[in-house]
Amino acid sequence: MKWKLFEDLTVIAAGLIERINMTGSVSTVKYGGKKVTEKHDRLSYPAAAKLIFSQLQSFKFVTDLSEIAAVGHRVVAGSTVFKQATLMTAAKIAELKQLNDFAPLHNPTEVKYIELVQQELPKVPQYAVFDSQFFTKLPETNAIYSLPYEYTKKFGIRRYGEHGISHDYISRRAAELLAKPYADLKMITLHLGSGASVAAEKTGQAFDTSMGFAPLTGVTMGTRAGDVDPSIIPYLMKKLNCSVEDVLRILNQKSGLLGISGISPDMRDLLAAKEQPRARLAIEIFINRIVKYVGAYFTELGGADALIFAGGIGENNVLLRQEIVNRLAVLGFQLDSKLNQAGKEGLISTAASTVKILIIPTDEELSMIQQIKQQMAAAK
Amino acid sequence: MKWKLFEDLTVIAAGLIERINMTGSVSTVKYGGKKVTEKHDRLSYPAAAKLIFSQLQSFKFVTDLSEIAAVGHRVVAGSTVFKQATLMTAAKIAELKQLNDFAPLHNPTEVKYIELVQQELPKVPQYAVFDSQFFTKLPETNAIYSLPYEYTKKFGIRRYGEHGISHDYISRRAAELLAKPYADLKMITLHLGSGASVAAEKTGQAFDTSMGFAPLTGVTMGTRAGDVDPSIIPYLMKKLNCSVEDVLRILNQKSGLLGISGISPDMRDLLAAKEQPRARLAIEIFINRIVKYVGAYFTELGGADALIFAGGIGENNVLLRQEIVNRLAVLGFQLDSKLNQAGKEGLISTAASTVKILIIPTDEELSMIQQIKQQMAAAK
Repeated sequence: MKWKLFEDLTVIAAGLIERINMTGSVSTVKYGGKKVTEKHDRLSYPAAAKLIFSQLQSFKFVTDLSEIAAVGHRVVAGSTVFKQATLMTAAKIAELKQLNDFAPLHNPTEVKYIELVQQELPKVPQYAVFDSQFFTKLPETNAIYSLPYEYTKKFGIRRYGEHGISHDYISRRAAELLAKPYADLKMITLHLGSGASVAAEKTGQAFDTSMGFAPLTGVTMGTRAGDVDPSIIPYLMKKLNCSVEDVLRILNQKSGLLGISGISPDMRDLLAAKEQPRARLAIEIFINRIVKYVGAYFTELGGADALIFAGGIGENNVLLRQEIVNRLAVLGFQLDSKLNQAGKEGLISTAASTVKILIIPTDEELSMIQQIKQQMAAAK
Repeated sequence: MKWKLFEDLTVIAAGLIERINMTGSVSTVKYGGKKVTEKHDRLSYPAAAKLIFSQLQSFKFVTDLSEIAAVGHRVVAGSTVFKQATLMTAAKIAELKQLNDFAPLHNPTEVKYIELVQQELPKVPQYAVFDSQFFTKLPETNAIYSLPYEYTKKFGIRRYGEHGISHDYISRRAAELLAKPYADLKMITLHLGSGASVAAEKTGQAFDTSMGFAPLTGVTMGTRAGDVDPSIIPYLMKKLNCSVEDVLRILNQKSGLLGISGISPDMRDLLAAKEQPRARLAIEIFINRIVKYVGAYFTELGGADALIFAGGIGENNVLLRQEIVNRLAVLGFQLDSKLNQAGKEGLISTAASTVKILIIPTDEELSMIQQIKQQMAAAK
């Protein structure tokens, strides 16, 4: 569980609680250059939430919880019902509860949290910001699958995308840095972390995304398979004598970089082990799938103005950025190796590059706060 | 059931039996500009095979069946076991029977046919030519999925591709027409029929394909969904209260152009109905998916020398070729509209096009005969 406390748009403190519902839960609080780690007995989810509010006070970030003006919650699935940051009234919470099917592992917990915080801070407005909302505006051609159209409509089967808050933030930030109107730019955004996705933006909104109905498909991820033929499911069920849910668990938790390499889901571990053939194969596949998505999106966009690297790998891995851009040379992409090496926010392409390439450290919490402030201002 | 009788590399006669195992089976025989259609009672598969051999004699294509030098069978799945046209000895038939899992709807019938023809023509060598064999040489990076590697190996889970005989034939024929060594060309081949696939060739062999483990994925097809998120399977099972096999049936038989449009799986019907929004949407999605694959392959190939159109849609649809190539303009593709309109085998791009664009009517039977003759010569 992650949290950040903002005063206006500045972070006052940030925290993390790990090993929730496990023995030896651990909390970390970072503020003013300090980092405090505490061990706890097994913390339940409600106890973890309570701990955060007690830490806000014990660390004197607030004198009284009433100083908190608003709470923002990141929610995975808003379907096409929630298209923006939304004040969570009782009616909206009820609506949200209808969407559990779209993210059975995430949404129920997130709703529980909203209710829990409401009990702690009954007078404070709570907003949900949805990871799916950026992609509700995908053009229908890219949003839907080639399924019977009545299922698409009746059951809401489409690409909901993922990392939407991040793609939204980094593409807008890129427009700022390039000093061009957002709506005038065609962009390809790479959010590359343990989860990874490639998205395209055009005319001021999301145009395509590698992520699908659930956060499984697209490029190869830490433990997630990315694109696979669904025909594999009944085949694996037969071979492993297991259920469809078991196969989905394998595709989500045991596949990707971990599955190919047999070593680790973490790209840093694979790079350290790259003389091993399966580590090298995993890295190769990771790069290849990203290159193919960039090529596909570049083509359907009719060219791109910018390519953005974000996420843990995208922001920090000099070598992978180099490898990916090298293979985009045929499209006119060219990296400035010094700028790439420096790895700072901003441009890392040469003047000759036909596409501006940027690193933008993603900041989903800042994006959430910006959106919430906008909603609060609009409500006044 | 389709057949062609060759003398050397020339077609003497061709035939078709439709509505096998249904009331009112129909046979068609074409030869020397004539076409003879006959109605039959319900023909079983063995009866259909017997009919073909009796037609060969009654139409006087052969005086005696002993004149037949060899029979070639197209087989869908050869896994990675069968890498070339193969003489079907008892041992090879036994091996082939082990592969039914890879194409449960096709392989068992095809094996039955080989045995049936063996009974009719016990002294004639029979060869199986595999639709998968062209793609057994995919580089591992493109062949495998990001699954646990032990399943990839133990269960043979990989891209087997589809339309391999066609992609093989049209890419080699393109090299002939371009008068360049096959191994020197980077090509993207489009086999666009009721089934459709995009493949890439490089260094004289298959480099990538949109088709996956089964002939389900890749671009949108007549009734097949193409790429979809496997997470949809348990969701649809729940919503429709059905089995995993039922969902796969929907994805294979009720999806694609038919599913989106609700009108027809046939592109000609959709173009005739394109003022209807769902017909237009289906056409748009069909084009979009092809454009994305071409962009992806162009990029991973580091550019391409040729793009080939084949298959019913690829060979005959002037408008779709134009629409697809228009959207590839950013990559330097340019169509000569007169040549495109004429629609003959050969070049249809302008001199300014960075990539040569060709129409090549596919000829899978000719390719099979060529391969079989090669094997027979090698065996001597």
